[in-house]
Amino acid sequence: MDYRIEKDTIGEIKVPSEKYWGAQTQRSKQNFPIGDEKMPKEVIEGFAILKKSAALANHELGLLEKEKAEAIEYAADQILSGELEEHFPLVVWQTGSGTQSNMNVNEVIAYVGNMWLKDKGSDVRLHPNDDVNKSQSSNDTYPTAMHVASVQKVEDVVLPALTQLKDTLKEKMEAFNEIVKIGRTHLQDATPLTLGQEISGWHRMLEKTENMLKESVHYVKELAIGGTAVGTGLNAHVDFSEQVVSKINEYTGKNFISAPNKFHALTSHDELVHTHGALKALAADLMKIANDVRWLASGPRCGIGEITIPANEPGSSIMPGKVNPTQSEAVTMVAAQVMGNDASIGFAASQGNFELNVFKPVIAYNFLQSAQILADSMISFDERCVSGMEPNHEQIEKYLRDSLMLVTALNPHIGYENAAKIAKTAFERDQTLKETAVELGILTEEQFEDYVDPEAMTKPNAK
Amino acid sequence: MDYRIEKDTIGEIKVPSEKYWGAQTQRSKQNFPIGDEKMPKEVIEGFAILKKSAALANHELGLLEKEKAEAIEYAADQILSGELEEHFPLVVWQTGSGTQSNMNVNEVIAYVGNMWLKDKGSDVRLHPNDDVNKSQSSNDTYPTAMHVASVQKVEDVVLPALTQLKDTLKEKMEAFNEIVKIGRTHLQDATPLTLGQEISGWHRMLEKTENMLKESVHYVKELAIGGTAVGTGLNAHVDFSEQVVSKINEYTGKNFISAPNKFHALTSHDELVHTHGALKALAADLMKIANDVRWLASGPRCGIGEITIPANEPGSSIMPGKVNPTQSEAVTMVAAQVMGNDASIGFAASQGNFELNVFKPVIAYNFLQSAQILADSMISFDERCVSGMEPNHEQIEKYLRDSLMLVTALNPHIGYENAAKIAKTAFERDQTLKETAVELGILTEEQFEDYVDPEAMTKPNAK
Amino acid sequence: MDYRIEKDTIGEIKVPSEKYWGAQTQRSKQNFPIGDEKMPKEVIEGFAILKKSAALANHELGLLEKEKAEAIEYAADQILSGELEEHFPLVVWQTGSGTQSNMNVNEVIAYVGNMWLKDKGSDVRLHPNDDVNKSQSSNDTYPTAMHVASVQKVEDVVLPALTQLKDTLKEKMEAFNEIVKIGRTHLQDATPLTLGQEISGWHRMLEKTENMLKESVHYVKELAIGGTAVGTGLNAHVDFSEQVVSKINEYTGKNFISAPNKFHALTSHDELVHTHGALKALAADLMKIANDVRWLASGPRCGIGEITIPANEPGSSIMPGKVNPTQSEAVTMVAAQVMGNDASIGFAASQGNFELNVFKPVIAYNFLQSAQILADSMISFDERCVSGMEPNHEQIEKYLRDSLMLVTALNPHIGYENAAKIAKTAFERDQTLKETAVELGILTEEQFEDYVDPEAMTKPNAK
Amino acid sequence: MDYRIEKDTIGEIKVPSEKYWGAQTQRSKQNFPIGDEKMPKEVIEGFAILKKSAALANHELGLLEKEKAEAIEYAADQILSGELEEHFPLVVWQTGSGTQSNMNVNEVIAYVGNMWLKDKGSDVRLHPNDDVNKSQSSNDTYPTAMHVASVQKVEDVVLPALTQLKDTLKEKMEAFNEIVKIGRTHLQDATPLTLGQEISGWHRMLEKTENMLKESVHYVKELAIGGTAVGTGLNAHVDFSEQVVSKINEYTGKNFISAPNKFHALTSHDELVHTHGALKALAADLMKIANDVRWLASGPRCGIGEITIPANEPGSSIMPGKVNPTQSEAVTMVAAQVMGNDASIGFAASQGNFELNVFKPVIAYNFLQSAQILADSMISFDERCVSGMEPNHEQIEKYLRDSLMLVTALNPHIGYENAAKIAKTAFERDQTLKETAVELGILTEEQFEDYVDPEAMTKPNAK
Repeated sequence: MDYRIEKDTIGEIKVPSEKYWGAQTQRSKQNFPIGDEKMPKEVIEGFAILKKSAALANHELGLLEKEKAEAIEYAADQILSGELEEHFPLVVWQTGSGTQSNMNVNEVIAYVGNMWLKDKGSDVRLHPNDDVNKSQSSNDTYPTAMHVASVQKVEDVVLPALTQLKDTLKEKMEAFNEIVKIGRTHLQDATPLTLGQEISGWHRMLEKTENMLKESVHYVKELAIGGTAVGTGLNAHVDFSEQVVSKINEYTGKNFISAPNKFHALTSHDELVHTHGALKALAADLMKIANDVRWLASGPRCGIGEITIPANEPGSSIMPGKVNPTQSEAVTMVAAQVMGNDASIGFAASQGNFELNVFKPVIAYNFLQSAQILADSMISFDERCVSGMEPNHEQIEKYLRDSLMLVTALNPHIGYENAAKIAKTAFERDQTLKETAVELGILTEEQFEDYVDPEAMTKPNAK
Repeated sequence: MDYRIEKDTIGEIKVPSEKYWGAQTQRSKQNFPIGDEKMPKEVIEGFAILKKSAALANHELGLLEKEKAEAIEYAADQILSGELEEHFPLVVWQTGSGTQSNMNVNEVIAYVGNMWLKDKGSDVRLHPNDDVNKSQSSNDTYPTAMHVASVQKVEDVVLPALTQLKDTLKEKMEAFNEIVKIGRTHLQDATPLTLGQEISGWHRMLEKTENMLKESVHYVKELAIGGTAVGTGLNAHVDFSEQVVSKINEYTGKNFISAPNKFHALTSHDELVHTHGALKALAADLMKIANDVRWLASGPRCGIGEITIPANEPGSSIMPGKVNPTQSEAVTMVAAQVMGNDASIGFAASQGNFELNVFKPVIAYNFLQSAQILADSMISFDERCVSGMEPNHEQIEKYLRDSLMLVTALNPHIGYENAAKIAKTAFERDQTLKETAVELGILTEEQFEDYVDPEAMTKPNAK
Repeated sequence: MDYRIEKDTIGEIKVPSEKYWGAQTQRSKQNFPIGDEKMPKEVIEGFAILKKSAALANHELGLLEKEKAEAIEYAADQILSGELEEHFPLVVWQTGSGTQSNMNVNEVIAYVGNMWLKDKGSDVRLHPNDDVNKSQSSNDTYPTAMHVASVQKVEDVVLPALTQLKDTLKEKMEAFNEIVKIGRTHLQDATPLTLGQEISGWHRMLEKTENMLKESVHYVKELAIGGTAVGTGLNAHVDFSEQVVSKINEYTGKNFISAPNKFHALTSHDELVHTHGALKALAADLMKIANDVRWLASGPRCGIGEITIPANEPGSSIMPGKVNPTQSEAVTMVAAQVMGNDASIGFAASQGNFELNVFKPVIAYNFLQSAQILADSMISFDERCVSGMEPNHEQIEKYLRDSLMLVTALNPHIGYENAAKIAKTAFERDQTLKETAVELGILTEEQFEDYVDPEAMTKPNAK
Repeated sequence: MDYRIEKDTIGEIKVPSEKYWGAQTQRSKQNFPIGDEKMPKEVIEGFAILKKSAALANHELGLLEKEKAEAIEYAADQILSGELEEHFPLVVWQTGSGTQSNMNVNEVIAYVGNMWLKDKGSDVRLHPNDDVNKSQSSNDTYPTAMHVASVQKVEDVVLPALTQLKDTLKEKMEAFNEIVKIGRTHLQDATPLTLGQEISGWHRMLEKTENMLKESVHYVKELAIGGTAVGTGLNAHVDFSEQVVSKINEYTGKNFISAPNKFHALTSHDELVHTHGALKALAADLMKIANDVRWLASGPRCGIGEITIPANEPGSSIMPGKVNPTQSEAVTMVAAQVMGNDASIGFAASQGNFELNVFKPVIAYNFLQSAQILADSMISFDERCVSGMEPNHEQIEKYLRDSLMLVTALNPHIGYENAAKIAKTAFERDQTLKETAVELGILTEEQFEDYVDPEAMTKPNAK
């Protein structure tokens, strides 16, 4: 393999010739041969947006020559185009400030920018620290990139997926709103409701967690940039932060703000804990929805079988003709993953010391994973399962006829204890409620029919 | 022991004569001899508020006689006075809908109400189900009581405690704002900041999590009441829910609303997951603050020792004269507990099926515990530690003089690489930065003094 | 209220006259008004066992007068009798070494011992530190008491409960071993097995976790005593540790050993993390078993209904005659709690620094809670649910007849693809497998009957 | 792109020509566009080992032709060589039984085996289900492959890494065993110990968790193979399981056994919960060790600074000359990740229903990730940090001289209260203990020197 020699303040080091990174990236690559979880590409992109914003701000403040700023912008855009992915080889399990990924970005930008300057015939050259990292520190850039990535992921990936699933649920809820079915509490037969009402509960879950996400992600919009090494802003111009944030907003179309307290921004990740709490609430709800779907579709002959869902693939390598609720299973496994990610994030966020929390990469990794797999699984669940969900009318009606819990409608007429007597006796005698009610002499047939109307039982009393 | 005979739909059962509960409570007591974690008294109080509100609403809707409503109100107020605690013997580990605690409340209210009616000479008698539970089900009352309890705990207990600690931090932040000290990142010496700035980061943590809590608890204000058995409102009047909520607001001074979707309200506890996410964010922040305090106070002679904190008790049973940061330790143990409670709540919230989530008591138990111990530990930490925190000027100044990271101020003047050379050489030679800078011929003494001003390093550049 | 004046190295303090504790307990009581989770009484008992063992060891080593040792032994036995519970008022959320609970024990023992000495007419008096705590530190006594309590709880409470439930499962497994029923995978109908086989899986879960617990609790048998303040054993006789442990073994009938490395014993709680991992494995298994039980018992008319379980209480405050699987619910809520406790313990165990981990009380609290509620819920589940579980033959046979997955028996005869064709066609045509197989011309009726034998399908092929 | 048409029981589907997978893999690829977490390659390798073992067993039982068995063996070996990685495109978030990954392996083996048969001129062809999956189901093969992968990872990757770090700690512990230094408890100065003793606590942590891992992984050695669809062994020969396991042992050099109860093996993953509990105990210990290392190395001038560690890279992009404890940070982030993974695994393991747990891929994914990053980070921490750790004698001695806690040695001579008086007075007067002891008239200089000997304080009393 071909190498070139790069150097940093530690000394010289060999870098593969075809790679654009520099000495510090190479050193990190060698020093952290741990796992293969790469620093999320969304964080790298967050850095790219930040670096060009910083370059322009520095230029406008008179601290960086125009040509340099342009070179940085050019290189950052190359990163954002996705073409340079191979030049970001570092893993999550590195220094906890993400310094080496900041330097990876600085080095690649300097390299690409310098090629561009050279091609243009310019003599100007970028230095990774003095130019690309000007007015910045890893300690303020990494959390900035992490926040930019997290907000984009929540607003541009999770929320649209959530909306898509929510909208399908709304359609189903409306389509099935007249289908009266038996309710179940404690897994036991209960009073009736409509299938649309049942689905409306799921719909409301998504509606509420959507709001939770929208509201909580707002806290993530505070950016650390401008805090530099310890939060004081040393070596940055007093207007730098605001100007950078304004550029970032231009590029992303978001409404980030400069964090009003940079000491917080470097040491606390309470916003990500809180927002991931909303993702966890969403995961808990999705677990419930996906479980309901697969239980309602259980069978086909020995389960509940009130709905059917699409058969997307052969279900079993040994049982021919078996069809399984595989989309539900993907969703529920995602929920299990999100529960664990939440624990990692809470733990990591609690471990800051003095002017820095050095668990940033593990927080970013878990947060972005949760968001991505929640979004993807909601879309897949929607398109390959929920959209194709249909009621099994025959089964639904059979259960409704058979259920003993229709007896509840009698409470206001004959009291809880008499009603209980009817239900229990019907169960013991394997009779219908009506037969028993009449046999026990508690009600006439006419009264029973008057009082027990499953459809009416799906609403409160009008009077 | 003396007993009386009570009965329910299962049959007869002996109840200790001096207890006010009835058959179902007794049955639960016998059927669940599990642990000794009692159903939280805040939930019982939430039930009491709900029961009198429901009685009045039922009365106003023409469904319950005035005398009965008054008897219920009387009995509920007795519960709220705290006098009846011994009549609520049930544990958390019962049925997952909390049915038996609902019945415990119904039974005690009926008993106490009936004594009151009897004392008054009335012939009217309350039935636990038909009267006290009228228009209600455990499935909508338990989550209502749980939400009332949770909102009261967050707003009336956690938030005031948080404010108290936050205010003390603000005072300290202002008092110490001119004290320049060394910063630390990665536990290594970094550039300076003021002690006030350091504390301002803590202050901001509380400010942010305060907002998170205020915003997220809003979701908990939706009440399930009116949903009855499965969310449809069967056996309740269509106006019942709104009227009950309006009474609850009168009694509590809060702004609860009737949950717009009762199917959600019975099956999802996403609001408590989300709000507990904010409590977890607070716990993570408190962990960081309490850790900083004890590290900064470490010593007295072999630690960092930049601050002193009150000596509240002898620290050691073997080491005479030892003083330990015990308030910090209580806070950090509380944080560890909250992390675990969060996992329990997320798990429990994900396990609903069909029309009900039957993990309500374990959710309530963990949520209320987290809230209480966070609140109590913040107050204790405030009063017995943070309020008495003082800077140790001598130590602070010594560190500031010695630190090599003041070299960072030279970056804009001599570049990162030259600055690094000075820092490293000074470290190797065990010299001051100035000595080294001059010896290496990079700067004159005058230049050094001009460029390196610790106080100035605590701010961004004005130009 | 009546007070007496006590003092410690901090100064004087008022203690309620009727309480036996001293200055340091009082100070802690005042300094930590946090929550109401008391230091577990099992830890106090562990201390009592330790204190008398230490007194005897000190005496035998010639370091403590006989009378003092006897007084300590007397007082410790009083604690173990349960009579002194009110004199241990401290909470979990105190100093993280549990120093104040060690001092609480020292003080109560000194007080009670001194009354006894006085009653005897002796002039000898005990000092809480110099005598009761002789050769000890909180740092080695607290983890010792915690280990003694944890081992007793696992071996004497959890394992017997586990065995009881396991034995009932064994009975049921044998009793139902000939009942062929449909299997279910992915909640979908699968090939048959016997009810006994299904239960044998549950039985095996308890058998495996029983072994895990037995093996892992072994690590907890290493005791820290003898390490004193930092693990070196300063101020203790070199033989002290072994002698104390030998007394503890006499009193408890266990096989504790003196931890071979005391530095570990003070700073790491890996044994409790590991053993709680086994408790978590048990919780996960119990969750599965309790879920299976309630799903199999779901209905009575609109669920799976293959088994019946005892009706222990009225299930609903609104739905008359409803019976719910409440014991399953208590078990699954316990499982949710244990999941969270596990997170707290892991977190807490990771937070040691230098010569001490100061998260001991929160670890002990969670560990002991998990163990207790697991044990109690297993016994309750056994006695009130599993023991009364019976098959519903009619339903079991109906499902078995109807299921399409019997088709799997045809794989070796006609291949997976033909078998799939039969199953799918039967489903579409709402026919039996046999009808379809014959109609499709794939098999004769005789062949079908020869190949498809549900009972034979519950075993591997003999050839 | 070039495609070929493949089919399964659902119908036809296009597969990219250059890929070896078949219809079901393609279907899964299209149906689960969720995240980019691939099914771990270790699971695929576990499958490959299993598939060739099964082929040979089927052949020996007279159920599979020799040529077919050889073709399967050939193809499985190709997978194990690592050459076919691109043909395993499926993600973790698929069906929870891992059916589609089982089919992916079946399909690739059939494809590669058939090419090999064709090349040989044979007319025999493999069918993915009827031949490669013969006598098997996803439900028993996936857990078998998962256990094979997990045991190999723990025994061949984690344990050697642990041993390596443990051995280095042993060297350091011996090398530094005479260096007396101050101890610290509650972060406060405590009595002395040697640096070797301090490290011996870390060493013991690894020794204990090593044993925990060895013992707990033993439970994972039970293999599900032979259970087929629901645990009964339907369609497998009664000797199949034992024969397969015997081949697996030949190939892996391990001592797997056939799970004595297959119903457990398909539905419970308690062994992985338990073994991951040991990994979590290890993570908690590593967190403590890595934290101690970085705190002891904190500084260089404003921290504790008792040891030095290697400077592996420039620590800061803004602070020149800064060196950070980056290896510690990687380790502690790994610990945070493992804590979360543990929560996911426990959750997932609790969610089985009836004859199957459908959370297998998420369990495998988390377990294998934890194991890999723990192993890698231990090696990296060992080689780049612990091996180069050296004492800073000057600082160590300074602290030892200054500490007030040497006063503890006086307890047996003058009592706890007098000793406390000396320590407190020395602190207030900023004196040495000796000066104070003499000034207070409690001891003569000679007595003080006789009683207080730091080196002697690192051991128990010999008499």
